[in-house]
Amino acid sequence: PSFAAASWASFAEEVGFRTRLLEMAAGLDDVIAMGRGDPDFHTPAHIVAAAQKAIANNEHHYTHSAGIAPLRAAIARKLERENGLDYTAEEIIVTAGAQAVMLCMLALIDDGDEVLLPTPRFMTYDHAVEMCGGVPVAVPSSEATDFAMIPAEIEKCITPRTKVLVLVTPGNPTGAVTPPAMIREIAEIAQRHDLIVISDEIYEKLIWDDQEHLSIATLPGMRDRTITLNGFSKSYAMTGWRVGYLAAPLAFARMLIDPRHTLSINTATPSQFAALAALDGPQDAVAEMVEQYRERRRATMAALDEMGLSYGFPGGAFYIYVNVSSTGMDGESFCLHMLKEGRVMVQPGTMFGDKSNEFIRIGYLQPLPRILEAMERMKAVIARIRA
Amino acid sequence: PSFAAASWASFAEEVGFRTRLLEMAAGLDDVIAMGRGDPDFHTPAHIVAAAQKAIANNEHHYTHSAGIAPLRAAIARKLERENGLDYTAEEIIVTAGAQAVMLCMLALIDDGDEVLLPTPRFMTYDHAVEMCGGVPVAVPSSEATDFAMIPAEIEKCITPRTKVLVLVTPGNPTGAVTPPAMIREIAEIAQRHDLIVISDEIYEKLIWDDQEHLSIATLPGMRDRTITLNGFSKSYAMTGWRVGYLAAPLAFARMLIDPRHTLSINTATPSQFAALAALDGPQDAVAEMVEQYRERRRATMAALDEMGLSYGFPGGAFYIYVNVSSTGMDGESFCLHMLKEGRVMVQPGTMFGDKSNEFIRIGYLQPLPRILEAMERMKAVIARIRA
Repeated sequence: PSFAAASWASFAEEVGFRTRLLEMAAGLDDVIAMGRGDPDFHTPAHIVAAAQKAIANNEHHYTHSAGIAPLRAAIARKLERENGLDYTAEEIIVTAGAQAVMLCMLALIDDGDEVLLPTPRFMTYDHAVEMCGGVPVAVPSSEATDFAMIPAEIEKCITPRTKVLVLVTPGNPTGAVTPPAMIREIAEIAQRHDLIVISDEIYEKLIWDDQEHLSIATLPGMRDRTITLNGFSKSYAMTGWRVGYLAAPLAFARMLIDPRHTLSINTATPSQFAALAALDGPQDAVAEMVEQYRERRRATMAALDEMGLSYGFPGGAFYIYVNVSSTGMDGESFCLHMLKEGRVMVQPGTMFGDKSNEFIRIGYLQPLPRILEAMERMKAVIARIRA
Repeated sequence: PSFAAASWASFAEEVGFRTRLLEMAAGLDDVIAMGRGDPDFHTPAHIVAAAQKAIANNEHHYTHSAGIAPLRAAIARKLERENGLDYTAEEIIVTAGAQAVMLCMLALIDDGDEVLLPTPRFMTYDHAVEMCGGVPVAVPSSEATDFAMIPAEIEKCITPRTKVLVLVTPGNPTGAVTPPAMIREIAEIAQRHDLIVISDEIYEKLIWDDQEHLSIATLPGMRDRTITLNGFSKSYAMTGWRVGYLAAPLAFARMLIDPRHTLSINTATPSQFAALAALDGPQDAVAEMVEQYRERRRATMAALDEMGLSYGFPGGAFYIYVNVSSTGMDGESFCLHMLKEGRVMVQPGTMFGDKSNEFIRIGYLQPLPRILEAMERMKAVIARIRA
């Protein structure tokens, strides 16, 4: 059968190399994977217990497509408490995690509409835009400005077909935090050019040193043109539960309910109860994970400094985006070489829409001793490359 | 913001009336809901226990986008054992339930492609086709032929733009089972006109009297052009877990993995372990539910006969599609009237793409005593209408 995806160029770009890496890794022993964005931590015990209790109580039937009422209310309270955002429970749609991205694009994108995307980035944005007939437009960033989304670069990319601007801060794969002053400028651009902003704040709780997270929908004039995305996967180590949410102005949120039903009826009911426990329960487990990420990040940065590899300042998330051009290898070759020779799996920037092929993403998602072991292996391999 | 969905006509049709019904029901006491396709039975205890154990064992991380390997293997075994289908595990994609519909349409439909759909039907098909830029084409059916999909009617709807034929048997909302002889004719049509067939077999285990279920992909020449859909919601009372699957020829299945990742990365991990227990565990609970559905169906049909209401022979699923025109009311008016006067909620055929507005769907998804109570209420209301 013919396949509509023949024109989905972004898949080939991302998927081809990932498959090569995984196939190579499958043939090797004792690989330390510092790739996929899945915390090594397990979901905190009280959240697991809440899910077990919910399913014992037969909470495994269909729910409202937008989510169970107590979860929507708890999310609205969280957004007010932690982000200063004033959404009502009716303005929240619970999604199967990153499903929110596809849902937004289905609702917003007509054929040929252009969507401004940070670069490098999580490629699901490209795939969703392309599947909806839109055009992903890469807003360039650079190591010199720590991969933040630069307002002047955004303006250069705007055309009469630009409809949506995606802001992801803290960012993946770079860990870049777009500072509040720049977010204010971006808000002005969005208003000047009548853009809808998708503000992806999934990494908001993972923020380091003196960095500051600002939710763009709190700025004057922005609430009505912003869709705020967030979820439980990263902060609460809940990746497999597939539960996240979006918040949007009431009229828009209501319009999304039926398309959300078409995508998968509702978010898995046990997962919704797990998410409710995550929000309403104690937050100590999050604080403990954050403390460990902080220590791992420091150790990883120190090791990279010793290797003489530069990187954009990783102000947030659990990634470091490292420039490997000083080794004389491009990013993809470096990853293949490091996997084969060092049994450390890292991912090239090309998997994140970065055409330069000079960077790799390291995720510090292993216990500290394993990270230190991985860094020793990388040091040794790089020393041999440079010898 | 503008909304791509402005052209999604099928939503307005389905959703408007559902909202009216639900809002009216919210103001009434003691409503007996015989509407939504959610079994009143709870998920069998051994499946619940397996999910609890899996999450206790930290099975709540990301999985392969196509599903965990043992589940894909168990599904392949089930399809061979129960349906005579020869798919390998690599040809199975685990989905968040009806998400398989959207996934297929994203992969298959280019702008203007026509998709033949049984009528009446589960409207997610229309929504998914429209969101992908395709054109839903209703293949008519009638009470006289028990709402089966008639080969001659299919042929009349074929144009040069026809790409996909959707076959749903047993069907929703009619309970129609398309007999094997007709399925053979439909297979010939698909081959003659080079159509892809989506065979939705979600209700296969709910089949009554002497009816027979045939999986179209077992017929000569059909495996290569069929996508078989199935899931756990209906047979195992697992609606809220959101887990289903599709089976397709290897090359096509592989092409779907990355779009499936874009939709929601993977099916909720706890739900996948629940599904695995459903397939590998004892099947007694299914047999017990089937026995109860059988008894309920018989009682509901008898009551409808007493009311003098006709219906298509419900050979499968847990629905009866009832003609209410003999009451002098159209289907929508009947539903509003029955809710207000009888506190019984049933759904009009118009919510399932049936333009005739002469039918209602009754789902026998209440315990038998409640069904008998609902039937008494309906009898009384109809007696007053006819008086």
